[in-house]
Amino acid sequence: MGTLRDLQLALSEKIEELRQRDELIDELEQELDEKDALIKHLQNELAKYRAVLKPITEKHQAQM
Amino acid sequence: MGTLRDLQLALSEKIEELRQRDELIDELEQELDEKDALIKHLQNELAKYRAVLKPITEKHQAQM
Repeated sequence: MGTLRDLQLALSEKIEELRQRDELIDELEQELDEKDALIKHLQNELAKYRAVLKPITEKHQAQM
Repeated sequence: MGTLRDLQLALSEKIEELRQRDELIDELEQELDEKDALIKHLQNELAKYRAVLKPITEKHQAQM
């Protein structure tokens, strides 16, 4: 179980570890936000290509 | 600082909080992996559209 002093030390170590975990969680959540923004951008780009390519493909097929 | 019993309780609470944080970190890292896979997929799709659209656009411009 340890002495009062040991326990106080262990407790302050755990509090510091928690602080570090919270910092990491903040970073991971920020990375997730950035990836979400990139996904949205790529999906918009794809939608534009599809909108352009669809009429061309239809026209091409009509000429065949 | 509190009694030995108080410190033991506080310590076991912090250990439980750390376990929960680690669980959350695992989940966030898994979400990041999934988003990375989606980003790769979308970038591949875009590359395909660009490869198809580029010759058509060049041909179209040559006819004008």
